[in-house]
Order: sequence, then structure tokens, then C-alpha cells
Amino acid sequence: MADAFTWPVRVYYEDTDTGGIVFYANYLKFFERARTEWLRSGGIDQSVLAATEGIMFVVMRTAVDYHVPAKLDNELKLSVTVEKRGRASVEFLQEAWRIDSTPGTDDDAQRMPPSHTLIATGRIKVACVDQRTLRPKALPEQVRQFIEGGAAFTAV
Amino acid sequence: MADAFTWPVRVYYEDTDTGGIVFYANYLKFFERARTEWLRSGGIDQSVLAATEGIMFVVMRTAVDYHVPAKLDNELKLSVTVEKRGRASVEFLQEAWRIDSTPGTDDDAQRMPPSHTLIATGRIKVACVDQRTLRPKALPEQVRQFIEGGAAFTAV
Amino acid sequence: MADAFTWPVRVYYEDTDTGGIVFYANYLKFFERARTEWLRSGGIDQSVLAATEGIMFVVMRTAVDYHVPAKLDNELKLSVTVEKRGRASVEFLQEAWRIDSTPGTDDDAQRMPPSHTLIATGRIKVACVDQRTLRPKALPEQVRQFIEGGAAFTAV
Amino acid sequence: MADAFTWPVRVYYEDTDTGGIVFYANYLKFFERARTEWLRSGGIDQSVLAATEGIMFVVMRTAVDYHVPAKLDNELKLSVTVEKRGRASVEFLQEAWRIDSTPGTDDDAQRMPPSHTLIATGRIKVACVDQRTLRPKALPEQVRQFIEGGAAFTAV
Repeated sequence: MADAFTWPVRVYYEDTDTGGIVFYANYLKFFERARTEWLRSGGIDQSVLAATEGIMFVVMRTAVDYHVPAKLDNELKLSVTVEKRGRASVEFLQEAWRIDSTPGTDDDAQRMPPSHTLIATGRIKVACVDQRTLRPKALPEQVRQFIEGGAAFTAV
Repeated sequence: MADAFTWPVRVYYEDTDTGGIVFYANYLKFFERARTEWLRSGGIDQSVLAATEGIMFVVMRTAVDYHVPAKLDNELKLSVTVEKRGRASVEFLQEAWRIDSTPGTDDDAQRMPPSHTLIATGRIKVACVDQRTLRPKALPEQVRQFIEGGAAFTAV
Repeated sequence: MADAFTWPVRVYYEDTDTGGIVFYANYLKFFERARTEWLRSGGIDQSVLAATEGIMFVVMRTAVDYHVPAKLDNELKLSVTVEKRGRASVEFLQEAWRIDSTPGTDDDAQRMPPSHTLIATGRIKVACVDQRTLRPKALPEQVRQFIEGGAAFTAV
Repeated sequence: MADAFTWPVRVYYEDTDTGGIVFYANYLKFFERARTEWLRSGGIDQSVLAATEGIMFVVMRTAVDYHVPAKLDNELKLSVTVEKRGRASVEFLQEAWRIDSTPGTDDDAQRMPPSHTLIATGRIKVACVDQRTLRPKALPEQVRQFIEGGAAFTAV
């Protein structure tokens, strides 16, 4: 996760299920929030792309391994790394980490960097499509440049 | 609920939260499923209305009282009653009932009607709008007639 | 899908997103509804297993390929096939099919079987765990027998 | 909203529906995130209350008026104001505001405070209950003091 873009997500009641843990489908939402903010960190809003370029992103494949359950009030950190860029698709490696800061820690603890636990690992393939026909369309130049520029590898 | 249209809903993991009960926001989804199926029982599909009339329904007001929590695997019955019809809006009274059938009941029990417990009561106001401008638009004739015909008061 | 257990799911507003299609994370919910009902078809309720055996199922891995987008009002059919059974885990192959019945078809059309379109394919690995410690626990005998009995391969 | 606690919420794909707007039920989630962070601003975590006091909060009543639809990428600000505190319940007034900053504004615009549009108004009644019996239980002293201290009326 070292140099990846990361985005914080807090676990609320809405994210949990009666098993007392985060409902597994919700990690796909967390991963998407992080991808959306990663794009935004490059000045790219999907609603603007839809209005100006007539394109949108659709998810073609998701693969998630769940390592450790997260729970209510947990602080998560979601990473975004581009693994592969095609003409009209992007493949991401994303990780969900739990920030294990002890609540109510004293000053000394504050000086220690919090430890992290890997909660889930996702591989997500996203396609760029025409928003009307839903057919593949080349990534907008702005997105291509953002990825080429290695923005994904710059900590924010 | 006597003569209202009703629709069955089963509680799955996705509907619950870490409190061990159905997450309260999800009753709005259950109520909507019932309204959608009530319309469909009159031959009205919202996706068809969008394509042919250019209209859609948006929710303007919701008010829900939660009486008793529902839990995983509970069988619910959602009712739909029209309380008021305006030119471009409809107000619904909706109830969520839990069907208290004992699992593993024997033949005698089967002959007894299951008892019901009132779980939640909702009042939902829906507006008919132009799907592009989101401005109010008169209810389609087909919907008006369906409501006037008292379809909401016919058990299905 | 020939002999697999299948479960119908209707697409409601709650399932869609602003792209006009079913939000991809929701297929995980649809797949789970089907697995839950598959278990129930064998007389197994997860809430009962929790109360009597102290176990629950947690999802360890999901992999979904999205072939064609589903939309509002679509009727889907979700299949459940057991691919592998371990001591404390089960791996499922699940498919989401769209039922392509023409709305408003006449009598002749009714006699034709509706065609189907494959919407999404999922592979889901589920573990049986102690509901308190979240540690792996052998599948209950009842579940093991249900799977061995080939219930997953019996149409319902 | 002047002096109320507020919490920012961004609209993602997960929050929208095929009507192109935020799915109305999701405002209940946004309101809850704000209440949760309001409590946290007073040093109160619900997961800690559950572990130490054996209590949790359940929602007894929700009433929401939807004024203007929010859309993908909108920035919202959610307010929290305590309207009434009972022995074992709290009633909140909550508002969802859209921050109308023009994307890509120039320097002059940046110096102007962004305008706000009221999106939705909610009234939410929450009860404090024993997490096992789900019966009402007096608010923990810590919560009572936090409310009395007028924390809800302090901007954060």
C-alpha cells in the first residue's frame, strides 16, 4: 500500500449485518468510493465525464478476498493501484486496511504510528462505455494521462 | 390491512445490521417493492411508463413508525393502501407485518391461520414527474384509472 | 443452469444506479438470497443454525463477472450449484439469468418458453464459523447431508 | 443550520438510482452518519457503549421531506440538532444541504462562500435500549451530559 492513493472510510451501522461484521458486499462500495476520490484527486469527476464526454464506467469483474472481518466504528483505509490500463478498461488492485488505533490512547501512544491490519483485497476491472449504448469507448484523454502520470502511485 | 394489496418480503442478511435487527432504512425499500408490485398487479411497469410517457415517480415524503424489530429469516407482508390521490401525486399508507408461523409446525398448526405482528407503519407521498426536468406532471391516465378502480383495495 | 436450484429476483429502484443499470455490488445480495433459499429448501434456516449450533456463515471470497447489465423491472433467475465442499467451507458457482419474456405477449407467445440471457457469473466461497469467535467450525451434519444429498442439483 | 453540528457526505454511485438522483432511503443513512459523528465529537463511540453499557440505539420514528434531488458527485452537508431529550430517547432535527460550489471556478469564485440548497429535512426519534432485550433503558450519563452541554449546538 506504500505509495498508493488511499481514502478513509468509517464503518457505520448501515455497513454491518446481524453477524456483527461488515456485510461483505459493502467492500465493493468502499473500493468504489476510493476509486472515485482517486479520480477526483486528478481533477476528474464522473458526472462531468458523463456530461461532457457521454461516457461512464461500468464494472466488468470483481474479485475480493476477505481476510479479517471489520466491525462497527472501525476506521478503514482503502487503497487504489492501477494494475493494467487497456484502451477502454482499467484494472485495479485495491486493499482495505483497518487502522488499529487504540481508542482513548494517551499521548505516548499518539506518537506511535498506528498499526494496520489487512481486511480485504480486491481486484476490480472497470470498462469505459458510451452511456447510451453501453458499448466500450476509449478512455478519455484526461483519464489516460492521469493514469500515465502515475497519479495512482502518489500518496495523497 | 384487511383488503389491501400485500406483498411478501423475506429478511436476508443484507437487510440486517449489527444490532441483530432489520436496519430501519430498509423498510423504505420493502414499502417500495410492495408499491411497485401493486402497480404491476394493474399491468403498470415503471420502466414502461418511463419509456412511453417520459415520467417517473419520486418520493416527496416518508414517515415511518417502527413498532417491533424484525430479524433475519422473518417473513414479512407489506401492505399498500392509497390514502389520497392528487393530480400529480399519491399518498400511501403502508404497513409491514411479520408472519408468526412457527417453524416446524405439525399438521394441526398448518390448519391454523398464522398470527401477524405489526412491525412498522409508513406514510409515503410519491410525485409523478417528468423524468428529464423532474417537474410535476399529471399522473398517467392508466395509473389514475387503476387507483380509481380501487385496485388498491382488492386483495391479490 | 439446467438442474441447479434457482430463485427469482425482481429488479427494483433500490437495486439500480444512476448509470441506469443494476449496481454491480447488488448481485452479491441476489446470489446470497438464492443460497439462503437453497438452504431453506432443505429445511435449513440460518437463524436456527445460529441459535442451535452457534454457527454462522461468512463469505471468504467472491469473484463475479458481469456480462450484460440488468435494468429496472427485469426478472432475474439466480442459480446455486455447489462446486466443492470442504470440512468448514463450501464453494458455489452461481449465475444470474435475465428472463426475456416480452411484456404484453399474446397467447401464442405464452406457450413459448421464455429465452434467457446470462447476466453475471459468480464464484462464492463461504466458511462456517463459530458466531462468537469467528473461527472456522465444521459444517453442521444437517448442512453436510443436504449438500451430499445433491439437493443443489435438484430443480425446485 | 447556523450552529448545528455538521458532517460532510459525498454522493457516490452506490447512493443513486436509475432515476439519476439519490435514492431517498439513503438520506436515512446520511443522517445516521452525521448523528454517529456528532456523538463521536463528544468522545462517544456506539461500539464502546455496547461493550461497556450493554446498550444500543434503535430508531423509533423517521419523517423525511425531500425538497430537491441530489445527484452523483454532489457534496452534502448533514446537520444534527437535538430537539428533545427524554429519559431513554432523543429526537433530532436533521437537514441535508447541498454545497453549490461551481466545479472549476476561478479564483474570484473561490473567495465567495459557496451557497447552499436545502435538499431534505428529517426528524428522527432514537431510543436507547438494552442490546439483549431491546427494552428501553435510560440514556448513559455520558450521553446525557453531552446533550445537556449543548454540544449539538456547537459548530465543529
